[in-house]
Amino acid sequence: MTGVYLVGIGATKIDEHWERPLRDLMLEASLKALRDAGLSKRDVEAIFVGNMSSGYLQGQEHLGSLLATWLGVPGVAANKVEAACGSGGAAFHNAFLAVKSGLYDCVLAVGVEKLTDATTPDATSALIMAEDQEYVAFAGFSFVALNALVYKAYMKKYGAKQEDIALFAVHDHKYAVNNPLAQYPRAVTLEEVLSSPMVADPLRLLESAPLGDGAAAALLCSEKKLKEVEKDVVIEVVGSALATDVLSLHDRADLTTLSATVKASRKAYAMAGIEPKDVDVLEVHDAFTVLGVIHLEDLGFAEKGAGWKLLKEGQLEKDGDLPTNTMGGLKARGHPVGATGIYQIYDIAVQLRGEAGKNQVDGAEVGLAQNVGGVGGTVSVNILKRVR
Amino acid sequence: MTGVYLVGIGATKIDEHWERPLRDLMLEASLKALRDAGLSKRDVEAIFVGNMSSGYLQGQEHLGSLLATWLGVPGVAANKVEAACGSGGAAFHNAFLAVKSGLYDCVLAVGVEKLTDATTPDATSALIMAEDQEYVAFAGFSFVALNALVYKAYMKKYGAKQEDIALFAVHDHKYAVNNPLAQYPRAVTLEEVLSSPMVADPLRLLESAPLGDGAAAALLCSEKKLKEVEKDVVIEVVGSALATDVLSLHDRADLTTLSATVKASRKAYAMAGIEPKDVDVLEVHDAFTVLGVIHLEDLGFAEKGAGWKLLKEGQLEKDGDLPTNTMGGLKARGHPVGATGIYQIYDIAVQLRGEAGKNQVDGAEVGLAQNVGGVGGTVSVNILKRVR
Repeated sequence: MTGVYLVGIGATKIDEHWERPLRDLMLEASLKALRDAGLSKRDVEAIFVGNMSSGYLQGQEHLGSLLATWLGVPGVAANKVEAACGSGGAAFHNAFLAVKSGLYDCVLAVGVEKLTDATTPDATSALIMAEDQEYVAFAGFSFVALNALVYKAYMKKYGAKQEDIALFAVHDHKYAVNNPLAQYPRAVTLEEVLSSPMVADPLRLLESAPLGDGAAAALLCSEKKLKEVEKDVVIEVVGSALATDVLSLHDRADLTTLSATVKASRKAYAMAGIEPKDVDVLEVHDAFTVLGVIHLEDLGFAEKGAGWKLLKEGQLEKDGDLPTNTMGGLKARGHPVGATGIYQIYDIAVQLRGEAGKNQVDGAEVGLAQNVGGVGGTVSVNILKRVR
Repeated sequence: MTGVYLVGIGATKIDEHWERPLRDLMLEASLKALRDAGLSKRDVEAIFVGNMSSGYLQGQEHLGSLLATWLGVPGVAANKVEAACGSGGAAFHNAFLAVKSGLYDCVLAVGVEKLTDATTPDATSALIMAEDQEYVAFAGFSFVALNALVYKAYMKKYGAKQEDIALFAVHDHKYAVNNPLAQYPRAVTLEEVLSSPMVADPLRLLESAPLGDGAAAALLCSEKKLKEVEKDVVIEVVGSALATDVLSLHDRADLTTLSATVKASRKAYAMAGIEPKDVDVLEVHDAFTVLGVIHLEDLGFAEKGAGWKLLKEGQLEKDGDLPTNTMGGLKARGHPVGATGIYQIYDIAVQLRGEAGKNQVDGAEVGLAQNVGGVGGTVSVNILKRVR
């Protein structure tokens, strides 16, 4: 079976792109990825577009054909992949399967979402579609409120303090400063985070990923196609796994762990033949500070209840034991829902290539990206390795 | 590389299922497919759900995790696949890739859509999202109107008459009578079709597929997994291809051909090692009568402009040269958008197994299903063969 290689990456700045339609954002990211790989659009054989809410928010479905059209490659295979906030990672996994199947040698995985030129209530309505409309949304829950429940349960169970967990936002913003694509490239203090408006008790505004628009693209190819790519650095996708959990929090025995993260990561580690300690650079889906902490535990980097200690001890810094969200994470790079999973791949690739500038992690060879749909209803874990 | 086998099928009746939520329909189809295969839910490793408009019409996304939850298999890989009205066929193709990749041995492809408990204007708004919202929907086009344009262009270019093309509806309804899952199992006459209300000149109501709700499921497995399945008849997926065209009619040189059908079918024929003449039973995506005729041509069964002759000469009958839509097609079996591609697989399988009752095509061994997204923006062609 062929290896799968990441040969090109591209992304727009995450921003409020009111003047740019979905197609425009997808196109910029895709063309950048092709240029980055030194390949032509005519090399693309299949496209998977990760997106959650284009139908509801923009009145536009059929993004696969839309992108194929505007990229100038009608004819290629294409479809949209949706797994709520985990759509990007799921699209990447499907693209991985497409290359692995032997049917396609060059596949584009694109993530795109526009949240900000919808009115705010619309984005809130769109996001709760990640959970159960008939049992949860109907009862009045917003997506933020569900995560606030998780936050409370975590603090209660493990005696962790909000000021320790909220540090995740400070961490992300510190690194976003040097990321030209970040939505909020400015530092924040813990005091600012803890005194920002309450969104859903105990979650503060600055503990929550912002609404943003953006697109990112990753170009994958087979061993055969790799021979046509002239790059000094070669990155292989050595592990790719997707797992689900019961959709709703009320069906779970424990609110403080996402079993889909545990399942997907163990599968991906086994496929890659690595252990957590082999990961040099990490991207976790910290849509809310407490989620970032929980992910560190579920991925196997800390005991349950102890994830926040890695943060507090500085182990997540670029020169720490586990450099994490080194380009700003969901909180500060931004979180254009269906695109986020591909932005994470982008940020890992930047590190493995040694192109992260001031945020560079020395000698990073293995990177892991974890992307979450809903409150863990779906989780993808993709592991990249610099092989040359 | 492993072969891919269709070992289980299941579907709900297509109807106005006002009292049943999406999950319920998906679940019925999935459990039927598992029971049909003699496998357990614990055998399922991945799920691909084809659906177009659950976010817009039901306020529910994340259908992969939703189905995994209600099927009682949280943990498996799952995502939703969207390619407008071609979502089902695209989900089937992705499921095919997943087995082919060697990463999954048992994969469920499910299609689901609920159109009728939305108000009619909402379904119309949902369907036009298959085309370009910003250039086409914005100009006032409905999806039906676009197909009416194709109809006019076809009649003008080839001098075909509406009474010959409209026969497709009569054909479909005749076969739906013996299909217990069909939405409209009753015969109609050509006179009834041609005197039914005009929807968009020249398209008549009875030339247009109805709005309906339903779900269908297909269980695919690898050679390895096939050994656990005890079935007398074994069906292999010998060809599976997906292709796109430019999304919008205004960008095409010729309105009377869908180039994505030509591309996908030629690729699928080559993969299967067959020619059009080897197809024993055919399912075409006749969302509108004229589309059915055009598909016959684009798939290679007739010269351009001559598709309607096959229909008029009776070649599409179950004892003709090219038995087509033998369980009622989109017009009479029904067209629950994102589910249709899987219903087509279901109907082909019923024929290849010799379980089509009064509609049985004698000795059918090779079947082809063509599923279309938008007005040909995406087309999938899947070829099934009875190998035992």
